[in-house]
Amino acid sequence: PPPSSSMEEGRRKLMEFPYVPAPVRDLMVDLISTVDNRLESQLHPCTLPLDVQYYENTTGNSQASLQIRRGQDSSPIDYILESWIHSKLPTGGDLNITSLLVNMNSSTDAPNFLTELIQPSPTSVIIILDLPPRKDPVLYPDYLHTFYESTQLDTYRQKLEKLPEVKPYLSPSLYVRSVFSPTVIMFSVETETGDSARMEEIVRSHLIPVFKDVLGIWLNQCTCGGREVGETEKAYLKKRDSLVRIKSIEIDLESSFPRLFGPELASRVVSEIRKVLSSGS
Amino acid sequence: PPPSSSMEEGRRKLMEFPYVPAPVRDLMVDLISTVDNRLESQLHPCTLPLDVQYYENTTGNSQASLQIRRGQDSSPIDYILESWIHSKLPTGGDLNITSLLVNMNSSTDAPNFLTELIQPSPTSVIIILDLPPRKDPVLYPDYLHTFYESTQLDTYRQKLEKLPEVKPYLSPSLYVRSVFSPTVIMFSVETETGDSARMEEIVRSHLIPVFKDVLGIWLNQCTCGGREVGETEKAYLKKRDSLVRIKSIEIDLESSFPRLFGPELASRVVSEIRKVLSSGS
Repeated sequence: PPPSSSMEEGRRKLMEFPYVPAPVRDLMVDLISTVDNRLESQLHPCTLPLDVQYYENTTGNSQASLQIRRGQDSSPIDYILESWIHSKLPTGGDLNITSLLVNMNSSTDAPNFLTELIQPSPTSVIIILDLPPRKDPVLYPDYLHTFYESTQLDTYRQKLEKLPEVKPYLSPSLYVRSVFSPTVIMFSVETETGDSARMEEIVRSHLIPVFKDVLGIWLNQCTCGGREVGETEKAYLKKRDSLVRIKSIEIDLESSFPRLFGPELASRVVSEIRKVLSSGS
Repeated sequence: PPPSSSMEEGRRKLMEFPYVPAPVRDLMVDLISTVDNRLESQLHPCTLPLDVQYYENTTGNSQASLQIRRGQDSSPIDYILESWIHSKLPTGGDLNITSLLVNMNSSTDAPNFLTELIQPSPTSVIIILDLPPRKDPVLYPDYLHTFYESTQLDTYRQKLEKLPEVKPYLSPSLYVRSVFSPTVIMFSVETETGDSARMEEIVRSHLIPVFKDVLGIWLNQCTCGGREVGETEKAYLKKRDSLVRIKSIEIDLESSFPRLFGPELASRVVSEIRKVLSSGS
Protein backbone atom coordinates (compact mmCIF):
# COMPACT_ATOMS: atom_id res chain seq x y z
CA PRO A 1 0.00 0.00 0.00
CA PRO A 2 1.20 3.56 -0.72
CA PRO A 3 2.32 5.69 2.26
CA SER A 4 -0.45 7.67 3.95
CA SER A 5 0.41 11.07 2.47
CA SER A 6 -0.05 9.66 -1.07
CA MET A 7 -3.29 8.03 0.02
CA GLU A 8 -4.56 11.41 1.09
CA GLU A 9 -3.41 12.88 -2.21
CA GLY A 10 -5.61 10.48 -4.23
CA ARG A 11 -8.62 11.21 -2.07
CA ARG A 12 -8.03 14.99 -2.19
CA LYS A 13 -7.93 14.82 -5.98
CA LEU A 14 -11.25 12.95 -6.05
CA MET A 15 -13.04 15.48 -3.85
CA GLU A 16 -11.92 18.40 -6.05
CA PHE A 17 -14.28 17.44 -8.90
CA PRO A 18 -12.40 20.11 -10.83
CA TYR A 19 -14.28 20.00 -14.13
CA VAL A 20 -17.97 19.90 -13.18
CA PRO A 21 -20.22 22.91 -12.47
CA ALA A 22 -20.32 23.98 -8.80
CA PRO A 23 -23.76 22.53 -7.96
CA VAL A 24 -22.82 19.08 -9.31
CA ARG A 25 -19.59 19.24 -7.29
CA ASP A 26 -21.57 20.25 -4.21
CA LEU A 27 -23.97 17.36 -4.77
CA MET A 28 -21.19 14.77 -5.10
CA VAL A 29 -19.16 16.15 -2.18
CA ASP A 30 -22.29 16.17 -0.03
CA LEU A 31 -23.16 12.53 -0.85
CA ILE A 32 -19.60 11.27 -0.42
CA SER A 33 -19.14 13.14 2.89
CA THR A 34 -22.42 11.75 4.21
CA VAL A 35 -21.39 8.21 3.27
CA ASP A 36 -17.94 8.77 4.83
CA ASN A 37 -19.38 10.05 8.09
CA ARG A 38 -21.50 6.95 8.45
CA LEU A 39 -19.31 4.24 7.00
CA GLU A 40 -15.63 5.34 7.00
CA SER A 41 -14.82 3.51 10.24
CA GLN A 42 -15.80 0.22 8.52
CA LEU A 43 -13.54 0.75 5.49
CA HIS A 44 -9.98 -0.04 4.53
CA PRO A 45 -8.10 2.78 2.79
CA CYS A 46 -7.88 2.76 -0.99
CA THR A 47 -5.01 0.50 -2.08
CA LEU A 48 -5.05 1.26 -5.80
CA PRO A 49 -1.66 2.31 -7.24
CA LEU A 50 -1.36 6.11 -7.29
CA ASP A 51 -1.28 6.21 -11.09
CA VAL A 52 -4.69 4.51 -11.11
CA GLN A 53 -6.10 6.72 -8.38
CA TYR A 54 -5.46 9.57 -10.81
CA TYR A 55 -4.68 9.10 -14.47
CA GLU A 56 -4.84 10.87 -17.81
CA ASN A 57 -4.32 9.87 -21.42
CA THR A 58 -1.20 10.74 -23.41
CA THR A 59 -2.78 13.65 -25.30
CA GLY A 60 -4.06 15.18 -22.03
CA ASN A 61 -7.64 15.20 -23.32
CA SER A 62 -9.01 12.86 -20.66
CA GLN A 63 -8.48 12.81 -16.89
CA ALA A 64 -9.91 10.60 -14.19
CA SER A 65 -9.87 10.12 -10.46
CA LEU A 66 -10.75 6.78 -8.86
CA GLN A 67 -11.08 5.58 -5.27
CA ILE A 68 -12.05 2.08 -4.22
CA ARG A 69 -12.26 1.21 -0.54
CA ARG A 70 -13.02 -2.33 0.63
CA GLY A 71 -15.15 -2.94 3.72
CA GLN A 72 -13.55 -4.50 6.78
CA ASP A 73 -14.37 -8.10 7.67
CA SER A 74 -17.03 -7.12 10.18
CA SER A 75 -18.75 -4.68 7.80
CA PRO A 76 -21.72 -5.40 5.48
CA ILE A 77 -19.98 -3.19 2.89
CA ASP A 78 -18.12 -5.04 0.17
CA TYR A 79 -16.63 -1.91 -1.36
CA ILE A 80 -17.24 1.75 -2.14
CA LEU A 81 -16.22 3.09 -5.54
CA GLU A 82 -16.03 6.83 -6.18
CA SER A 83 -14.83 8.44 -9.36
CA TRP A 84 -14.91 11.27 -11.81
CA ILE A 85 -13.97 11.24 -15.45
CA HIS A 86 -13.44 14.27 -17.64
CA SER A 87 -12.85 14.26 -21.35
CA LYS A 88 -12.63 16.87 -24.07
CA LEU A 89 -14.78 15.54 -26.89
CA PRO A 90 -13.69 15.73 -30.56
CA THR A 91 -16.87 17.79 -31.09
CA GLY A 92 -15.45 20.55 -28.87
CA GLY A 93 -17.64 19.90 -25.81
CA ASP A 94 -16.70 18.37 -22.47
CA LEU A 95 -17.91 15.04 -21.10
CA ASN A 96 -18.09 14.69 -17.32
CA ILE A 97 -19.05 11.52 -15.46
CA THR A 98 -19.22 11.40 -11.67
CA SER A 99 -20.09 8.20 -9.77
CA LEU A 100 -20.66 6.85 -6.30
CA LEU A 101 -21.32 3.13 -5.88
CA VAL A 102 -21.63 1.22 -2.62
CA ASN A 103 -21.82 -2.55 -2.98
CA MET A 104 -22.84 -4.74 -0.07
CA ASN A 105 -21.33 -8.15 0.69
CA SER A 106 -23.16 -11.44 1.17
CA SER A 107 -23.53 -11.07 4.95
CA THR A 108 -26.70 -9.10 4.09
CA ASP A 109 -29.23 -9.05 1.26
CA ALA A 110 -29.80 -5.29 1.53
CA PRO A 111 -29.71 -3.33 -1.76
CA ASN A 112 -26.64 -1.50 -3.04
CA PHE A 113 -26.48 2.26 -3.59
CA LEU A 114 -25.64 3.77 -6.96
CA THR A 115 -25.54 7.27 -8.32
CA GLU A 116 -24.05 8.52 -11.56
CA LEU A 117 -24.24 11.88 -13.31
CA ILE A 118 -23.23 12.02 -16.96
CA GLN A 119 -22.86 15.51 -18.41
CA PRO A 120 -22.27 15.66 -22.14
CA SER A 121 -22.69 19.48 -21.99
CA PRO A 122 -23.38 22.24 -19.39
CA THR A 123 -27.09 22.24 -20.32
CA SER A 124 -27.60 18.49 -20.32
CA VAL A 125 -27.20 15.81 -17.66
CA ILE A 126 -28.17 12.17 -17.42
CA ILE A 127 -28.93 11.23 -13.83
CA ILE A 128 -28.98 7.72 -12.39
CA LEU A 129 -29.94 7.19 -8.76
CA ASP A 130 -30.95 3.78 -7.49
CA LEU A 131 -30.85 1.13 -4.82
CA PRO A 132 -30.11 -1.78 -7.16
CA PRO A 133 -31.79 -4.86 -5.68
CA ARG A 134 -29.67 -7.93 -4.88
CA LYS A 135 -32.52 -10.39 -5.27
CA ASP A 136 -34.92 -10.97 -8.14
CA PRO A 137 -37.92 -8.83 -7.09
CA VAL A 138 -40.28 -11.17 -8.98
CA LEU A 139 -39.21 -14.13 -6.85
CA TYR A 140 -39.01 -12.09 -3.62
CA PRO A 141 -42.05 -9.78 -3.38
CA ASP A 142 -41.37 -9.24 0.36
CA TYR A 143 -37.98 -7.83 -0.53
CA LEU A 144 -39.66 -5.39 -2.92
CA HIS A 145 -42.10 -4.44 -0.20
CA THR A 146 -39.46 -3.88 2.50
CA PHE A 147 -36.99 -1.80 0.56
CA TYR A 148 -39.01 -0.14 -2.20
CA GLU A 149 -42.71 0.03 -1.34
CA SER A 150 -42.69 0.74 2.37
CA THR A 151 -39.90 3.31 1.93
CA GLN A 152 -41.99 5.20 -0.65
CA LEU A 153 -38.95 5.37 -2.92
CA ASP A 154 -41.09 5.90 -6.01
CA THR A 155 -42.32 9.28 -4.76
CA TYR A 156 -38.85 10.72 -5.42
CA ARG A 157 -38.90 9.50 -9.01
CA GLN A 158 -42.37 10.95 -9.42
CA LYS A 159 -41.22 14.35 -8.12
CA LEU A 160 -38.43 14.67 -10.66
CA GLU A 161 -40.55 13.25 -13.48
CA LYS A 162 -42.83 16.29 -13.19
CA LEU A 163 -40.10 18.79 -14.14
CA PRO A 164 -40.61 19.98 -17.73
CA GLU A 165 -36.88 19.63 -18.49
CA VAL A 166 -36.87 15.95 -17.48
CA LYS A 167 -37.17 13.10 -19.97
CA PRO A 168 -36.91 9.35 -19.41
CA TYR A 169 -33.55 7.80 -20.16
CA LEU A 170 -32.77 4.15 -20.79
CA SER A 171 -29.35 2.56 -20.86
CA PRO A 172 -28.59 1.05 -24.29
CA SER A 173 -27.55 -2.13 -22.44
CA LEU A 174 -30.46 -4.45 -21.61
CA TYR A 175 -28.36 -6.00 -18.86
CA VAL A 176 -27.81 -2.63 -17.18
CA ARG A 177 -31.55 -1.92 -17.42
CA SER A 178 -32.23 -5.23 -15.67
CA VAL A 179 -29.90 -4.45 -12.79
CA PHE A 180 -31.90 -1.40 -11.69
CA SER A 181 -34.87 -1.41 -9.33
CA PRO A 182 -38.44 -0.57 -10.43
CA THR A 183 -38.06 2.80 -8.66
CA VAL A 184 -34.83 3.75 -10.44
CA ILE A 185 -34.42 7.45 -11.10
CA MET A 186 -32.97 7.53 -14.58
CA PHE A 187 -33.60 10.70 -16.49
CA SER A 188 -32.07 12.98 -19.02
CA VAL A 189 -32.36 16.62 -17.95
CA GLU A 190 -31.99 19.20 -20.69
CA THR A 191 -32.32 22.96 -20.47
CA GLU A 192 -32.31 25.35 -23.42
CA THR A 193 -28.94 25.87 -25.05
CA GLY A 194 -26.92 28.34 -23.03
CA ASP A 195 -29.29 28.30 -20.07
CA SER A 196 -26.82 26.84 -17.60
CA ALA A 197 -28.41 29.00 -14.88
CA ARG A 198 -31.61 26.97 -15.08
CA MET A 199 -29.55 23.77 -14.99
CA GLU A 200 -27.85 24.98 -11.81
CA GLU A 201 -31.25 25.77 -10.31
CA ILE A 202 -32.54 22.29 -11.16
CA VAL A 203 -29.52 20.66 -9.56
CA ARG A 204 -29.71 22.83 -6.42
CA SER A 205 -33.49 22.97 -5.91
CA HIS A 206 -34.59 19.57 -7.19
CA LEU A 207 -31.77 17.05 -7.59
CA ILE A 208 -29.78 17.71 -4.41
CA PRO A 209 -32.78 17.28 -2.03
CA VAL A 210 -33.89 14.07 -3.78
CA PHE A 211 -30.39 12.57 -3.91
CA LYS A 212 -29.84 13.38 -0.21
CA ASP A 213 -33.18 11.88 0.84
CA VAL A 214 -32.67 8.69 -1.17
CA LEU A 215 -29.16 8.27 0.24
CA GLY A 216 -30.63 8.82 3.72
CA ILE A 217 -33.21 6.08 3.14
CA TRP A 218 -30.50 3.72 1.95
CA LEU A 219 -28.20 4.48 4.89
CA ASN A 220 -31.01 3.87 7.39
CA GLN A 221 -32.56 0.81 5.77
CA CYS A 222 -29.57 -0.97 4.34
CA THR A 223 -26.45 -0.35 6.42
CA CYS A 224 -27.80 -0.89 9.94
CA GLY A 225 -27.93 -4.69 9.96
CA GLY A 226 -30.92 -6.86 10.81
CA ARG A 227 -30.83 -8.68 7.46
CA GLU A 228 -28.79 -11.74 8.34
CA VAL A 229 -28.93 -14.42 5.65
CA GLY A 230 -28.59 -18.21 5.69
CA GLU A 231 -26.01 -20.26 3.78
CA THR A 232 -28.19 -21.03 0.72
CA GLU A 233 -29.12 -17.39 0.38
CA LYS A 234 -25.49 -16.35 0.83
CA ALA A 235 -24.52 -18.56 -2.13
CA TYR A 236 -27.34 -17.03 -4.21
CA LEU A 237 -26.24 -13.48 -3.34
CA LYS A 238 -22.58 -14.26 -4.07
CA LYS A 239 -23.43 -15.67 -7.48
CA ARG A 240 -25.75 -12.81 -8.44
CA ASP A 241 -23.44 -10.07 -7.10
CA SER A 242 -20.44 -11.51 -8.90
CA LEU A 243 -22.34 -11.76 -12.19
CA VAL A 244 -23.43 -8.12 -11.90
CA ARG A 245 -19.85 -7.11 -11.20
CA ILE A 246 -18.39 -9.04 -14.13
CA LYS A 247 -21.04 -7.80 -16.57
CA SER A 248 -20.81 -4.19 -15.35
CA ILE A 249 -17.05 -4.06 -15.87
CA GLU A 250 -17.54 -5.60 -19.31
CA ILE A 251 -20.25 -3.15 -20.31
CA ASP A 252 -19.17 0.06 -18.58
CA LEU A 253 -15.43 -0.07 -18.60
CA GLU A 254 -14.33 -2.27 -21.44
CA SER A 255 -16.48 -0.40 -23.95
CA SER A 256 -15.93 3.29 -23.13
CA PHE A 257 -12.56 3.28 -21.36
CA PRO A 258 -10.39 2.41 -24.38
CA ARG A 259 -12.07 5.17 -26.36
CA LEU A 260 -11.39 7.79 -23.68
CA PHE A 261 -7.96 6.72 -22.44
CA GLY A 262 -6.43 4.54 -25.14
CA PRO A 263 -6.27 0.74 -25.00
CA GLU A 264 -3.13 0.40 -22.85
CA LEU A 265 -4.07 2.72 -20.01
CA ALA A 266 -7.66 1.47 -20.09
CA SER A 267 -6.57 -2.13 -19.77
CA ARG A 268 -4.21 -1.30 -16.88
CA VAL A 269 -6.97 0.55 -14.98
CA VAL A 270 -9.54 -2.20 -15.56
CA SER A 271 -7.05 -4.85 -14.45
CA GLU A 272 -6.25 -2.92 -11.23
CA ILE A 273 -9.99 -2.53 -10.52
CA ARG A 274 -10.46 -6.28 -11.02
CA LYS A 275 -7.51 -6.99 -8.72
CA VAL A 276 -8.87 -4.86 -5.86
CA LEU A 277 -12.42 -6.22 -6.23
CA SER A 278 -11.31 -9.85 -6.22
CA SER A 279 -8.95 -9.48 -3.22
CA GLY A 280 -10.13 -11.10 0.08
CA SER A 281 -13.03 -9.88 2.32
CA PRO B 1 -67.71 -28.67 -19.60
CA PRO B 2 -70.51 -26.80 -21.43
CA PRO B 3 -71.83 -28.29 -24.71
CA SER B 4 -69.94 -27.22 -27.80
CA SER B 5 -72.50 -24.74 -29.12
CA SER B 6 -72.21 -22.73 -25.86
CA MET B 7 -68.43 -22.95 -26.07
CA GLU B 8 -68.59 -21.37 -29.49
CA GLU B 9 -70.93 -18.70 -28.14
CA GLY B 10 -68.37 -17.55 -25.52
CA ARG B 11 -65.62 -17.38 -28.10
CA ARG B 12 -67.81 -15.56 -30.64
CA LYS B 13 -68.60 -12.94 -28.00
CA LEU B 14 -64.90 -12.44 -27.30
CA MET B 15 -64.00 -11.91 -30.95
CA GLU B 16 -66.70 -9.25 -31.38
CA PHE B 17 -64.81 -6.66 -29.31
CA PRO B 18 -68.03 -4.65 -29.59
CA TYR B 19 -67.02 -1.50 -27.72
CA VAL B 20 -63.55 -0.63 -29.03
CA PRO B 21 -62.74 1.45 -32.13
CA ALA B 22 -62.38 -0.60 -35.35
CA PRO B 23 -58.57 -0.47 -35.57
CA VAL B 24 -58.16 -1.73 -32.00
CA ARG B 25 -60.63 -4.54 -32.75
CA ASP B 26 -58.69 -5.37 -35.92
CA LEU B 27 -55.44 -5.43 -33.96
CA MET B 28 -56.82 -7.79 -31.31
CA VAL B 29 -58.60 -10.07 -33.80
CA ASP B 30 -55.42 -10.25 -35.87
CA LEU B 31 -53.24 -11.20 -32.89
CA ILE B 32 -55.71 -13.75 -31.53
CA SER B 33 -56.24 -15.36 -34.94
CA THR B 34 -52.49 -15.61 -35.49
CA VAL B 35 -52.04 -17.27 -32.10
CA ASP B 36 -54.98 -19.61 -32.82
CA ASN B 37 -53.59 -20.68 -36.19
CA ARG B 38 -50.31 -21.64 -34.61
CA LEU B 39 -51.37 -23.01 -31.25
CA GLU B 40 -55.04 -24.03 -31.29
CA SER B 41 -54.29 -27.70 -31.91
CA GLN B 42 -52.34 -27.77 -28.60
CA LEU B 43 -55.17 -26.29 -26.52
CA HIS B 44 -58.14 -27.57 -24.57
CA PRO B 45 -61.38 -25.64 -25.08
CA CYS B 46 -62.36 -22.98 -22.54
CA THR B 47 -64.09 -24.65 -19.58
CA LEU B 48 -65.14 -21.53 -17.70
CA PRO B 49 -68.87 -21.40 -16.81
CA LEU B 50 -70.78 -19.48 -19.47
CA ASP B 51 -71.69 -16.72 -17.02
CA VAL B 52 -67.96 -16.11 -16.48
CA GLN B 53 -67.13 -16.31 -20.19
CA TYR B 54 -69.46 -13.32 -20.50
CA TYR B 55 -70.69 -11.24 -17.58
CA GLU B 56 -72.02 -7.81 -16.74
CA ASN B 57 -72.76 -5.95 -13.52
CA THR B 58 -76.30 -5.41 -12.18
CA THR B 59 -76.56 -1.80 -13.38
CA GLY B 60 -75.45 -2.80 -16.89
CA ASN B 61 -72.60 -0.30 -16.82
CA SER B 62 -69.84 -2.87 -17.17
CA GLN B 63 -69.50 -5.86 -19.51
CA ALA B 64 -66.71 -8.37 -19.94
CA SER B 65 -65.76 -11.35 -22.06
CA LEU B 66 -63.21 -13.89 -20.87
CA GLN B 67 -61.66 -16.99 -22.44
CA ILE B 68 -59.05 -19.19 -20.80
CA ARG B 69 -57.74 -22.23 -22.63
CA ARG B 70 -55.28 -24.63 -20.98
CA GLY B 71 -52.51 -26.25 -23.00
CA GLN B 72 -52.60 -30.00 -23.57
CA ASP B 73 -50.12 -32.23 -21.73
CA SER B 74 -47.69 -32.35 -24.65
CA SER B 75 -47.76 -28.58 -25.20
CA PRO B 76 -45.32 -25.99 -23.78
CA ILE B 77 -48.34 -23.68 -23.32
CA ASP B 78 -49.72 -23.51 -19.79
CA TYR B 79 -52.71 -21.38 -20.75
CA ILE B 80 -53.95 -18.60 -23.00
CA LEU B 81 -56.11 -15.87 -21.53
CA GLU B 82 -58.07 -13.50 -23.77
CA SER B 83 -60.48 -10.85 -22.60
CA TRP B 84 -62.14 -7.53 -23.05
CA ILE B 85 -63.70 -5.32 -20.42
CA HIS B 86 -65.96 -2.36 -21.09
CA SER B 87 -67.23 0.07 -18.52
CA LYS B 88 -69.13 3.35 -18.60
CA LEU B 89 -67.22 5.61 -16.23
CA PRO B 90 -69.03 7.88 -13.72
CA THR B 91 -67.26 10.76 -15.52
CA GLY B 92 -69.26 9.97 -18.68
CA GLY B 93 -66.45 8.38 -20.70
CA ASP B 94 -65.90 4.73 -21.56
CA LEU B 95 -63.11 2.51 -20.30
CA ASN B 96 -62.00 -0.35 -22.57
CA ILE B 97 -59.40 -2.94 -21.70
CA THR B 98 -58.40 -5.70 -24.13
CA SER B 99 -55.85 -8.38 -23.24
CA LEU B 100 -54.05 -11.37 -24.66
CA LEU B 101 -51.75 -13.37 -22.39
CA VAL B 102 -49.96 -16.61 -23.22
CA ASN B 103 -48.22 -18.27 -20.29
CA MET B 104 -45.77 -21.11 -20.83
CA ASN B 105 -45.45 -24.14 -18.56
CA SER B 106 -42.30 -25.42 -16.87
CA SER B 107 -41.37 -27.80 -19.70
CA THR B 108 -39.64 -24.74 -21.21
CA ASP B 109 -38.03 -21.56 -19.90
CA ALA B 110 -39.12 -19.51 -22.93
CA PRO B 111 -40.72 -16.11 -22.17
CA ASN B 112 -44.49 -15.54 -22.01
CA PHE B 113 -46.38 -13.21 -24.35
CA LEU B 114 -48.48 -10.34 -23.05
CA THR B 115 -50.38 -7.53 -24.66
CA GLU B 116 -52.89 -5.18 -23.12
CA LEU B 117 -54.57 -2.05 -24.44
CA ILE B 118 -56.26 0.23 -21.94
CA GLN B 119 -58.40 2.97 -23.43
CA PRO B 120 -59.76 5.50 -20.97
CA SER B 121 -61.05 7.62 -23.93
CA PRO B 122 -61.10 7.48 -27.76
CA THR B 123 -58.06 9.80 -27.93
CA SER B 124 -55.97 8.02 -25.33
CA VAL B 125 -54.60 4.50 -25.05
CA ILE B 126 -52.09 2.82 -22.77
CA ILE B 127 -50.28 0.04 -24.60
CA ILE B 128 -48.40 -2.84 -23.03
CA LEU B 129 -46.57 -5.34 -25.22
CA ASP B 130 -43.94 -7.62 -23.79
CA LEU B 131 -42.31 -11.02 -23.62
CA PRO B 132 -42.18 -11.20 -19.81
CA PRO B 133 -39.04 -13.18 -18.91
CA ARG B 134 -39.39 -16.31 -16.77
CA LYS B 135 -35.89 -16.12 -15.33
CA ASP B 136 -34.13 -13.29 -13.52
CA PRO B 137 -32.23 -11.59 -16.37
CA VAL B 138 -29.53 -10.45 -13.93
CA LEU B 139 -28.73 -14.03 -12.97
CA TYR B 140 -29.14 -15.37 -16.53
CA PRO B 141 -27.43 -12.98 -18.99
CA ASP B 142 -27.49 -15.69 -21.70
CA TYR B 143 -31.28 -15.78 -21.43
CA LEU B 144 -31.37 -12.03 -21.98
CA HIS B 145 -29.08 -12.41 -24.96
CA THR B 146 -31.07 -15.23 -26.60
CA PHE B 147 -34.55 -13.79 -26.31
CA TYR B 148 -34.08 -10.02 -26.12
CA GLU B 149 -30.73 -8.94 -27.57
CA SER B 150 -30.31 -11.26 -30.53
CA THR B 151 -33.97 -10.80 -31.53
CA GLN B 152 -33.50 -7.00 -31.65
CA LEU B 153 -36.71 -6.59 -29.63
CA ASP B 154 -35.70 -3.14 -28.42
CA THR B 155 -35.84 -1.70 -31.94
CA TYR B 156 -39.65 -1.99 -31.84
CA ARG B 157 -39.81 -0.01 -28.60
CA GLN B 158 -37.49 2.57 -30.11
CA LYS B 159 -39.70 2.95 -33.18
CA LEU B 160 -42.84 3.72 -31.16
CA GLU B 161 -40.94 5.94 -28.72
CA LYS B 162 -40.21 8.35 -31.58
CA LEU B 163 -43.90 9.17 -32.22
CA PRO B 164 -44.71 12.64 -30.82
CA GLU B 165 -47.97 11.36 -29.27
CA VAL B 166 -46.17 8.67 -27.29
CA LYS B 167 -45.16 9.11 -23.64
CA PRO B 168 -43.64 6.61 -21.23
CA TYR B 169 -46.05 4.85 -18.92
CA LEU B 170 -45.25 3.00 -15.70
CA SER B 171 -47.56 0.69 -13.78
CA PRO B 172 -48.26 2.04 -10.30
CA SER B 173 -47.40 -1.46 -8.99
CA LEU B 174 -43.67 -2.01 -8.45
CA TYR B 175 -44.27 -5.75 -8.71
CA VAL B 176 -45.87 -5.42 -12.14
CA ARG B 177 -42.96 -3.22 -13.28
CA SER B 178 -40.56 -5.95 -12.15
CA VAL B 179 -42.35 -8.64 -14.14
CA PHE B 180 -41.70 -6.93 -17.49
CA SER B 181 -38.62 -7.35 -19.64
CA PRO B 182 -36.09 -4.55 -20.28
CA THR B 183 -37.52 -4.20 -23.79
CA VAL B 184 -41.15 -3.81 -22.65
CA ILE B 185 -43.27 -1.54 -24.81
CA MET B 186 -45.28 0.38 -22.27
CA PHE B 187 -46.50 3.73 -23.45
CA SER B 188 -49.37 6.11 -23.12
CA VAL B 189 -50.51 7.39 -26.52
CA GLU B 190 -52.53 10.60 -26.52
CA THR B 191 -53.84 12.57 -29.45
CA GLU B 192 -55.50 15.98 -29.26
CA THR B 193 -59.03 15.96 -27.86
CA GLY B 194 -61.46 14.94 -30.55
CA ASP B 195 -58.75 13.78 -32.96
CA SER B 196 -59.77 10.14 -33.01
CA ALA B 197 -58.76 10.01 -36.69
CA ARG B 198 -55.10 10.49 -35.75
CA MET B 199 -55.49 7.82 -33.04
CA GLU B 200 -56.85 5.39 -35.65
CA GLU B 201 -53.92 6.23 -37.92
CA ILE B 202 -51.43 5.57 -35.10
CA VAL B 203 -53.02 2.21 -34.36
CA ARG B 204 -53.14 1.17 -38.03
CA SER B 205 -49.81 2.52 -39.27
CA HIS B 206 -47.64 2.13 -36.19
CA LEU B 207 -49.07 -0.15 -33.52
CA ILE B 208 -50.45 -2.98 -35.67
CA PRO B 209 -47.14 -3.61 -37.55
CA VAL B 210 -45.12 -3.56 -34.30
CA PHE B 211 -47.55 -5.82 -32.40
CA LYS B 212 -47.63 -8.31 -35.30
CA ASP B 213 -43.85 -8.39 -35.61
CA VAL B 214 -43.29 -8.85 -31.88
CA LEU B 215 -45.88 -11.63 -31.77
CA GLY B 216 -44.14 -13.22 -34.76
CA ILE B 217 -40.79 -13.13 -32.94
CA TRP B 218 -42.38 -14.70 -29.88
CA LEU B 219 -44.11 -17.45 -31.88
CA ASN B 220 -40.88 -18.34 -33.67
CA GLN B 221 -38.49 -18.13 -30.72
CA CYS B 222 -40.64 -19.35 -27.85
CA THR B 223 -43.20 -21.90 -29.04
CA CYS B 224 -41.07 -24.13 -31.23
CA GLY B 225 -39.28 -26.11 -28.53
CA GLY B 226 -35.55 -26.59 -28.15
CA ARG B 227 -35.52 -25.17 -24.61
CA GLU B 228 -35.74 -28.34 -22.54
CA VAL B 229 -35.01 -27.74 -18.87
CA GLY B 230 -33.65 -29.93 -16.07
CA GLU B 231 -35.39 -30.77 -12.78
CA THR B 232 -33.79 -27.99 -10.67
CA GLU B 233 -34.63 -25.42 -13.29
CA LYS B 234 -38.17 -26.78 -13.57
CA ALA B 235 -38.67 -26.24 -9.84
CA TYR B 236 -37.31 -22.68 -10.15
CA LEU B 237 -39.65 -21.90 -13.07
CA LYS B 238 -42.66 -23.39 -11.26
CA LYS B 239 -41.99 -21.31 -8.17
CA ARG B 240 -41.42 -18.07 -10.08
CA ASP B 241 -44.36 -18.60 -12.48
CA SER B 242 -46.72 -19.36 -9.64
CA LEU B 243 -45.63 -16.27 -7.68
CA VAL B 244 -46.22 -14.07 -10.73
CA ARG B 245 -49.65 -15.61 -11.19
CA ILE B 246 -50.68 -15.13 -7.54
CA LYS B 247 -49.42 -11.57 -7.40
CA SER B 248 -50.94 -10.63 -10.79
CA ILE B 249 -54.39 -11.82 -9.75
CA GLU B 250 -54.00 -9.93 -6.48
CA ILE B 251 -52.91 -6.71 -8.15
CA ASP B 252 -54.90 -6.73 -11.38
CA LEU B 253 -58.13 -8.42 -10.50
CA GLU B 254 -58.70 -7.99 -6.80
CA SER B 255 -58.15 -4.24 -6.97
CA SER B 256 -60.07 -3.10 -10.06
CA PHE B 257 -62.67 -5.87 -10.51
CA PRO B 258 -64.81 -5.10 -7.45
CA ARG B 259 -64.95 -1.44 -8.50
CA LEU B 260 -66.14 -2.32 -12.01
CA PHE B 261 -68.42 -5.30 -11.33
CA GLY B 262 -69.36 -5.14 -7.67
CA PRO B 263 -67.79 -7.35 -4.96
CA GLU B 264 -69.95 -10.46 -5.47
CA LEU B 265 -69.56 -10.89 -9.22
CA ALA B 266 -65.88 -9.89 -9.01
CA SER B 267 -65.19 -12.52 -6.38
CA ARG B 268 -67.02 -15.21 -8.39
CA VAL B 269 -65.04 -14.42 -11.55
CA VAL B 270 -61.70 -14.33 -9.72
CA SER B 271 -62.48 -17.63 -8.01
CA GLU B 272 -63.36 -19.30 -11.36
CA ILE B 273 -60.13 -17.94 -12.88
CA ARG B 274 -58.18 -19.38 -9.92
CA LYS B 275 -59.96 -22.73 -10.32
CA VAL B 276 -59.13 -23.06 -14.02
CA LEU B 277 -55.51 -21.97 -13.54
CA SER B 278 -54.88 -24.40 -10.70
CA SER B 279 -56.46 -27.40 -12.46
CA GLY B 280 -53.94 -30.00 -13.74
CA SER B 281 -52.16 -29.37 -17.01
